[in-house]
Amino acid sequence: MADDAEHRGDTTREEPGNTEKDQVIYTQLRNGSLKLYELEKELPPLDAIRARREFIAQQTGTSLENIGIFSIDIERVVKRNCENMIGTIQVPLGVAGPLLIAGEYAQGSYYLPLATTEGALVASVNRGCSAITKAGGAQVCILHDGMTRAPVFAAENVVHAKQVSDWVKAHYDDLRTAAESTTSHGKMTGIVTYITGTSVFVRIEFDTKDAMGMNMVTIASAKVAEMIALATGARLIALSGNMCTDKKPAAINRIMGRGRSVVAGVALSHDLISKVFKTNAKNLVEVNYRKNLVGSASAGSMGFNAQAANVVAAMFIACGQDAAHAIDGSTCITTVDLTDSGVYVAVTLPSLPVGTVGGGTGVDTQQECLRILGVAGGGEPAGTNARKLAEIIAAGVLAGELSLLGALAAQHLARAHQQLGRG
Amino acid sequence: MADDAEHRGDTTREEPGNTEKDQVIYTQLRNGSLKLYELEKELPPLDAIRARREFIAQQTGTSLENIGIFSIDIERVVKRNCENMIGTIQVPLGVAGPLLIAGEYAQGSYYLPLATTEGALVASVNRGCSAITKAGGAQVCILHDGMTRAPVFAAENVVHAKQVSDWVKAHYDDLRTAAESTTSHGKMTGIVTYITGTSVFVRIEFDTKDAMGMNMVTIASAKVAEMIALATGARLIALSGNMCTDKKPAAINRIMGRGRSVVAGVALSHDLISKVFKTNAKNLVEVNYRKNLVGSASAGSMGFNAQAANVVAAMFIACGQDAAHAIDGSTCITTVDLTDSGVYVAVTLPSLPVGTVGGGTGVDTQQECLRILGVAGGGEPAGTNARKLAEIIAAGVLAGELSLLGALAAQHLARAHQQLGRG
Amino acid sequence: MADDAEHRGDTTREEPGNTEKDQVIYTQLRNGSLKLYELEKELPPLDAIRARREFIAQQTGTSLENIGIFSIDIERVVKRNCENMIGTIQVPLGVAGPLLIAGEYAQGSYYLPLATTEGALVASVNRGCSAITKAGGAQVCILHDGMTRAPVFAAENVVHAKQVSDWVKAHYDDLRTAAESTTSHGKMTGIVTYITGTSVFVRIEFDTKDAMGMNMVTIASAKVAEMIALATGARLIALSGNMCTDKKPAAINRIMGRGRSVVAGVALSHDLISKVFKTNAKNLVEVNYRKNLVGSASAGSMGFNAQAANVVAAMFIACGQDAAHAIDGSTCITTVDLTDSGVYVAVTLPSLPVGTVGGGTGVDTQQECLRILGVAGGGEPAGTNARKLAEIIAAGVLAGELSLLGALAAQHLARAHQQLGRG
Amino acid sequence: MADDAEHRGDTTREEPGNTEKDQVIYTQLRNGSLKLYELEKELPPLDAIRARREFIAQQTGTSLENIGIFSIDIERVVKRNCENMIGTIQVPLGVAGPLLIAGEYAQGSYYLPLATTEGALVASVNRGCSAITKAGGAQVCILHDGMTRAPVFAAENVVHAKQVSDWVKAHYDDLRTAAESTTSHGKMTGIVTYITGTSVFVRIEFDTKDAMGMNMVTIASAKVAEMIALATGARLIALSGNMCTDKKPAAINRIMGRGRSVVAGVALSHDLISKVFKTNAKNLVEVNYRKNLVGSASAGSMGFNAQAANVVAAMFIACGQDAAHAIDGSTCITTVDLTDSGVYVAVTLPSLPVGTVGGGTGVDTQQECLRILGVAGGGEPAGTNARKLAEIIAAGVLAGELSLLGALAAQHLARAHQQLGRG
Repeated sequence: MADDAEHRGDTTREEPGNTEKDQVIYTQLRNGSLKLYELEKELPPLDAIRARREFIAQQTGTSLENIGIFSIDIERVVKRNCENMIGTIQVPLGVAGPLLIAGEYAQGSYYLPLATTEGALVASVNRGCSAITKAGGAQVCILHDGMTRAPVFAAENVVHAKQVSDWVKAHYDDLRTAAESTTSHGKMTGIVTYITGTSVFVRIEFDTKDAMGMNMVTIASAKVAEMIALATGARLIALSGNMCTDKKPAAINRIMGRGRSVVAGVALSHDLISKVFKTNAKNLVEVNYRKNLVGSASAGSMGFNAQAANVVAAMFIACGQDAAHAIDGSTCITTVDLTDSGVYVAVTLPSLPVGTVGGGTGVDTQQECLRILGVAGGGEPAGTNARKLAEIIAAGVLAGELSLLGALAAQHLARAHQQLGRG
Repeated sequence: MADDAEHRGDTTREEPGNTEKDQVIYTQLRNGSLKLYELEKELPPLDAIRARREFIAQQTGTSLENIGIFSIDIERVVKRNCENMIGTIQVPLGVAGPLLIAGEYAQGSYYLPLATTEGALVASVNRGCSAITKAGGAQVCILHDGMTRAPVFAAENVVHAKQVSDWVKAHYDDLRTAAESTTSHGKMTGIVTYITGTSVFVRIEFDTKDAMGMNMVTIASAKVAEMIALATGARLIALSGNMCTDKKPAAINRIMGRGRSVVAGVALSHDLISKVFKTNAKNLVEVNYRKNLVGSASAGSMGFNAQAANVVAAMFIACGQDAAHAIDGSTCITTVDLTDSGVYVAVTLPSLPVGTVGGGTGVDTQQECLRILGVAGGGEPAGTNARKLAEIIAAGVLAGELSLLGALAAQHLARAHQQLGRG
Repeated sequence: MADDAEHRGDTTREEPGNTEKDQVIYTQLRNGSLKLYELEKELPPLDAIRARREFIAQQTGTSLENIGIFSIDIERVVKRNCENMIGTIQVPLGVAGPLLIAGEYAQGSYYLPLATTEGALVASVNRGCSAITKAGGAQVCILHDGMTRAPVFAAENVVHAKQVSDWVKAHYDDLRTAAESTTSHGKMTGIVTYITGTSVFVRIEFDTKDAMGMNMVTIASAKVAEMIALATGARLIALSGNMCTDKKPAAINRIMGRGRSVVAGVALSHDLISKVFKTNAKNLVEVNYRKNLVGSASAGSMGFNAQAANVVAAMFIACGQDAAHAIDGSTCITTVDLTDSGVYVAVTLPSLPVGTVGGGTGVDTQQECLRILGVAGGGEPAGTNARKLAEIIAAGVLAGELSLLGALAAQHLARAHQQLGRG
Repeated sequence: MADDAEHRGDTTREEPGNTEKDQVIYTQLRNGSLKLYELEKELPPLDAIRARREFIAQQTGTSLENIGIFSIDIERVVKRNCENMIGTIQVPLGVAGPLLIAGEYAQGSYYLPLATTEGALVASVNRGCSAITKAGGAQVCILHDGMTRAPVFAAENVVHAKQVSDWVKAHYDDLRTAAESTTSHGKMTGIVTYITGTSVFVRIEFDTKDAMGMNMVTIASAKVAEMIALATGARLIALSGNMCTDKKPAAINRIMGRGRSVVAGVALSHDLISKVFKTNAKNLVEVNYRKNLVGSASAGSMGFNAQAANVVAAMFIACGQDAAHAIDGSTCITTVDLTDSGVYVAVTLPSLPVGTVGGGTGVDTQQECLRILGVAGGGEPAGTNARKLAEIIAAGVLAGELSLLGALAAQHLARAHQQLGRG
């Protein structure tokens, strides 16, 4: 790794505090005259990371050697992805597939990168991929596409609230022009207002092309919010008023869509169900009925699925997506229809916030995963890469659902756990 | 890194398919006579990983060099954490803190490891930590502790369903004995049954000590479920009937608790609010009221918070927790009380599934993060490390909430985004 | 009552089965050769009602004399409102008010008719009315107006589902024309489609003018559904697919609106709070915060209010609305803002399904209640009476909320119960 | 009706203001020196009602003659059920049945009284009753029985909150003794505490025997709350903290039960489905699957049923239950299992708050309905009448579900509406 030591990794393994400058710095950190986040002002990035890590190691009496071994390009990361960096976490990366997909954007066979520490997950998804591929592939459709931000304003009273809402409707074009002036990529695709008492929520939606787009829409919303506040006298309370809704499970995202709304499905024949899953169509239907529908309804759950979160989280981490977006991304409804020829299984993901540019997509290992899927960087035309990624993830979720439903139907779950040894 | 090349990393960077054996293997993989998951049967782990990675690189026409650079102990990982491994994802790791905590288990000052690619997050949490520490530290309490699994059975009719439920209640001791026979660590702490039509859900709860415990309780549930099915004639439909509820947002977890239920809070004086957050108590209260309470209620959201998911996901990835558990882990209610002296801010996390043994906790980089927090491995007495980790994460969530509420109150969010450049 | 005995009431009080014809009929009813619902074929309405009631009295060994005493016009009722009629239930009717309202449609002072058996309710609402009136009246706005029905179709697969949805969007005008051909009053104001797996929900929205409009939109939906099924090959599964959503609490109604969406609010000064409610602004805010917001969030509730259901149910019964619509009608969010001068209290009712023609509005006693409010029959222009009714009910809910929050704040609830003696 | 004019009805029909005393009173009412609610102090109940009604008629320029015609015993009603009374609303009452029920408490054949103005409802339920009876009757079980009230307290901080909760657990017996000292009938069956931030909710559960019991448990809760506040220093914020949860749809009631939790089911053979519903088992299953399960899940609904609210509301009004309790009472999950012999249909009602004493049960017409069902007054032993009523209502809901699902399956809904003419 010597060849790229300049900007990558930290392979020197010297003892902490081995130079005079280091000694000075540790002293300053300890006495508080230098803050941890100020290290980059004093040292080049790699050195700052090392010094910070070593300081933490000293303070906590630990050895952090593995955290210090990495190969990603740091210059970019410390500016865009992570402050106060001390190294990286290495998350095991497996692949499942090939998975045959017949989407609008994803067409062909894909290997799914899954970053996870949960034993049995990759194997489970892999089995689902195999079943789908044997069945002729997963059908996938993008149903809606739009990232949202919803500032909240305080009106003086309910009449004023309605006036604010009316003003927004009447100035849609002006607001769109202003919103789009803040970005060279995105297009505003909608504004909807909601009133609860004196709180006015203005949900602004953007086509963010290949970006996940939270930042884009937040900046645009700031501009829009300012205009609304100025024109109406409503007080801007928060740029995000939780009707966006970001990183919280929320019915509004299911109903209005947020990020990429995707549905994926596959028809399984009686024969295939029997061979791959050692069960039958009626059992699959019954597991989905009693567990994913009746069970979730009884639990007051917003997730009507078996393990959507597992696949979404693992693919998000692998592909440089925001891991916290697995919350919205996994609010999935899984359906199993009994058909004459077997079953038709589908997953509906109303709110999958993904992008192929920005965020963590540029971190080297994550970028490599996007390349595995053929979706790194901006698409041609813009937006197609992100939509392709959304389609692939939805197909991956379908694979995970199929596999777990099949395993449960065949009552293999506990045995699988015992063998594969999850903690 | 030469010294531990045997079991760690992959620094050779040879061209793919550079040996005769490799050539044979690639041919077999291509023609399907060898499956990707069978590579470990043919090759030692590191070689299997390399061969698989190179095959994927070939198939997808990509270069995966960074994925192939890692230092974690592979032997353990391929058995317990990840199948079909091709390398690792490097997730940038930052630290926030020090954070002063006054919990029952966590007492003192901590640096929080946060694995994230979301720019501004670590800085945001850091600011919250600073505020909490200046305020004298976060109070934290564990309210409940119990991991659950809920098999679902099909009864013949509603009368039978009630009989099944009654049988379970009448045989609590027998079931507990059987359940506990499957584990040397855990203790069964409860069984509750729920009936919906002919579906009977048996929610089994365990004190899983320092393990997150899903595996433990699943294995025990299999045993219990078998006994119930045998004795009552109810058909076991699925070992998990979604009333557990695992990795889905669910009211049952808020009401009954699941994993570690934790609450953390801090009192901020008027003076501190003004100095650290450049705002005042009334503004903080109003942001929380209109955004986290009214906004979330209006959105039909189960998350009444600002950014709990960000902190939970980043700490989970850093500390080897199951990232998909960020879904349950982040169903947080944030409250801001107006007090005479300022505000009292609290976060309530009813369902934080964490452990310090098993799962991804043994992966080297993750283990190092646990060591930073002083919670690696089993606690003395058993369970105290996991509870300590839960307390620290809750305090971290509190820091994140404080910081974002403060930023919103001061209307700095968009500006922060612009400067720190999230995609 | 002799003057209108022909079509009203049943004052004769003869013994059951007192004529030969009666004897024959009872025999036939007993041996099953005549069904209860066939009585109207054999007898004039009043006689059929009496015969049925007397048969039930005989069968159950009861005396049903009060049920048999009524004055409403039966001809209309047995055709439109109730089959198998045996009489009426007399629900005590109280009035609260006067309540000063400043709405768009309701302007002036109103007495609210409340049909209830819940002691203390009318008194409670009355106190709220008094406070609002003293405060200068309730502000009320209609935010949205549209009754919906959402048939559900089964598509063959997810691609077909998207095609169905696309077809609907492309044929909006045709569908509207067809929909409106089924009614001389209503106007179709929207169609939105939702896809979950292979299920396609087509949510059709109508401006139903002064009718509550469920019947109107259902008939129109039948027409639309038939066209969609024919054109797309999707199978119509149910004319109501529960995304309407009718008589079930549902987030979709809060987000999209259903029926009349109304918001009402009032500013209370410190002085008024003190005088009327014997408490202060901070206490009112705190009760709302901990009970209606935090409490409801913690309970996994969709109702963020104190007693909206009480007022909605009582006014619905009084005014001939569908009592089961109190479910949707009461999904209210109550907000209490702390202001410089006191508090601003508001109620938001996203889904109030009300009408002033059709349904039970023509029953004599109910009609009289509508007249008390000045909203009986169709408005000029059409729709204004129903909207006025919605505004008045919202103001009534506001009165109920104010009163109960005030009572709780002053910790008078239990005492009030003890004195007024609810069972 | 002259014979009981003293305490019943108002048949005189004199012109308003026909006596000198009346004239004085109207003048006082108009100038505000006498309040509407003070009339009972000046006049005997019937006269007060008449004077108030005539005053309202004058003020609103309406004739309220039907409202003034009633036969119920007023003395009791004005004290217990309704303040500011001006008469009654006559709600049409139909019967459905006979309905064969095989419950623990309800055993035999019942006619269901339904008070409604919704055309087609009684006919619909009647068809369901017929199907159930032909199928051999509805099985019904009470799963849980307990009315709850949950005061909310403010603790100083989260540590204090936990102390309050711990104190409650440690003093369970003392609190029970105190709670039960406030009632001669009820038994406290549980206290559960919930903490959200600094808010502590203490959910107190009572076996309220034949009473619905809200009042009983509220009075007991006041006593308990006072003790807790005194002992712990927590401030009592509201006697009802919305975790009860009363008259709002709430997951906590589904999970913990509230009022009577009931399940009812029936097996329908292929033959019967075909004959009664003109459809088949697969269609019934599919309607329930796509509408009640997938549709409700997609709508973010808490009601997974077709028309539970219709039956609950109509029976509640008929039987003197609190109509606003139809909100909790109708949070029903309807399930349709495909079986070898046809289908098994069930309804699960986790929170049916009913009683046969107190509330509106003593109003004459309502009492007569309870007598029709054989459940008027207290049961022997105490509680059995209320439980029997709960079983009957659940069976009635089952009838309604069956009928509507069958109608939808056969696509008859719109036609039925057209014929029966709902507005």
